Amino acid sequence: MAVYTDITEDELKAFLAEYDAGNLMSYKGIAEGVENSNFLLHTDKAPYILTLYEKRVDRNDLPFFLGLMQHLADRGLSCPLPVARKDGAQLGELAGRPAALISFLEGMWLRKPEARHCRDVGEALARMHLAGEGFALKRRNALSVSGWRPLWDRSEDRADEVETGLKAEIATELAHLEAHWPQDLPAGVIHADLFPDNVFFLDDKLSGLIDFYFACNDFLAYDLSICLNAWCFEKDWSYNITKGMAMIEGYQSVRPLSAAETQALPLLCRGSAMRFFLTRLYDWLMTPPGAMVTKKDPLEYLRKLRFHQAVVSPAEYGLMAGEGA
Amino acid sequence: MAVYTDITEDELKAFLAEYDAGNLMSYKGIAEGVENSNFLLHTDKAPYILTLYEKRVDRNDLPFFLGLMQHLADRGLSCPLPVARKDGAQLGELAGRPAALISFLEGMWLRKPEARHCRDVGEALARMHLAGEGFALKRRNALSVSGWRPLWDRSEDRADEVETGLKAEIATELAHLEAHWPQDLPAGVIHADLFPDNVFFLDDKLSGLIDFYFACNDFLAYDLSICLNAWCFEKDWSYNITKGMAMIEGYQSVRPLSAAETQALPLLCRGSAMRFFLTRLYDWLMTPPGAMVTKKDPLEYLRKLRFHQAVVSPAEYGLMAGEGA
Repeated sequence: MAVYTDITEDELKAFLAEYDAGNLMSYKGIAEGVENSNFLLHTDKAPYILTLYEKRVDRNDLPFFLGLMQHLADRGLSCPLPVARKDGAQLGELAGRPAALISFLEGMWLRKPEARHCRDVGEALARMHLAGEGFALKRRNALSVSGWRPLWDRSEDRADEVETGLKAEIATELAHLEAHWPQDLPAGVIHADLFPDNVFFLDDKLSGLIDFYFACNDFLAYDLSICLNAWCFEKDWSYNITKGMAMIEGYQSVRPLSAAETQALPLLCRGSAMRFFLTRLYDWLMTPPGAMVTKKDPLEYLRKLRFHQAVVSPAEYGLMAGEGA
Repeated sequence: MAVYTDITEDELKAFLAEYDAGNLMSYKGIAEGVENSNFLLHTDKAPYILTLYEKRVDRNDLPFFLGLMQHLADRGLSCPLPVARKDGAQLGELAGRPAALISFLEGMWLRKPEARHCRDVGEALARMHLAGEGFALKRRNALSVSGWRPLWDRSEDRADEVETGLKAEIATELAHLEAHWPQDLPAGVIHADLFPDNVFFLDDKLSGLIDFYFACNDFLAYDLSICLNAWCFEKDWSYNITKGMAMIEGYQSVRPLSAAETQALPLLCRGSAMRFFLTRLYDWLMTPPGAMVTKKDPLEYLRKLRFHQAVVSPAEYGLMAGEGA
């Protein structure tokens, strides 16, 4: 949950005066997003999301994020659309923070997604990858392979507090990933954080993707591996091959994977499990007990990582024979 | 901020099936309310507030709170209205908790209210007092004079941690209040928590009162004293007599105070300052550092209490000569 900054009615009205968005009727801080403060606004015209970008978001990245949403929406992807100000800018300032007014996307995220939803997510992810083509701005993925060691350096000494032997296990895995990480897979704009709370459904149909604040340029199949980790494991951390198969099928129905992507999938899954393991481990070790943040168990991603380490063939993810060849 | 319980789309849909409230489009946990979990829902019919009553609210009090909102709304007061289920009940169950669907009231609470707003609040408070007449249910005020000593007993030993000498000072004041508390002022249903965040304004006009979860039966003028404390002091904790005068005038324009009420006002103000001082002191001492709750400084209400102790005549609150006589 996240409302780091409260705002007064007067400063909000002054902010809205730069837009043609109707008269303010109400605004409520909402418990969504982790990095920013979000408000749900009603005007006499429409509902909107107002996002105040807090310190953890680099101001220089905002044109990429907002421009990307615009680019994707222009190409028919259902995602929140930054509302342009009267002067054409997508970004304003509120309570001393960069702030954007964004169209409100109806829909709900699924607390208990099923295989058919995973299929829809795979399809939407591939559509996003195609829609992202031609987007002029670039943003490197600071949380890909080259970013893992600096993150690990900050947690390594205390890793065994979480589980005995973890320090040695992760060091070995990290060295393996660094040595074998692919160099030349198809790349483009990826979402990089397409967890269930970032996908909306309405009447059991996927209605849109949200939260592009980790989006960046990287291997497209790496994005799929993030989704396999985020959607296709059960509460007991076992892999659900029916969901995995559905997701990969959905993805390939729009954008078939190349043979190289298919072969790389187990390694990419290990990598994305490592990425979420490392950020969660860091947060777990650094967040004081009782702080205003829900700590996510890093062990969830350690279990997933171990699953992927044991994978011998991409078929184990549910890829049909002959696919990706 | 408050979302203690998350809910799944499926259980929410099952809950809404008992209502004639349209098809669910979205729901967001909102950062309002301290005791309960609140969600802002959009259906294809209207926006609603969904409240899940958490443990701190006594289930037996819910018919009083919900019935009161209905009673007040029926008498023309602008306040949220519990939506009746198809079977006529105002209360359902969701995620193992009592839950109510409530009409969404547009409007915003004022972070920086001015004297004219205080006048409107006084007027609305008096209207609420009149509208409350004839409400069949009763609820005693557990946070009035008889409730203060039990609360104090739980904080007394550690009071000097907050300010040296506090233990003796509060003990003396509490004995004074217990000895002199009025017995027979006009009584009725009071809001008991009408702070700025519980009063909505739209286009600079008061649009409604919310959050009746402290409402109870008590002296009507005690409710006014709570509002004087909550609205008419500045950030430096000094009393703003212009605001006080406006609030009392607004109140009396609808319901003139009796001579006994006017005379009792300084003592009632001391009492309500004591009430908020004691709950804040308790929370201050008992809440672990870094917990998910914003701790409110008990010293704010200690300063207000001392102001009221020094008041010699009710005129110091801004009562006009000859008023309440």
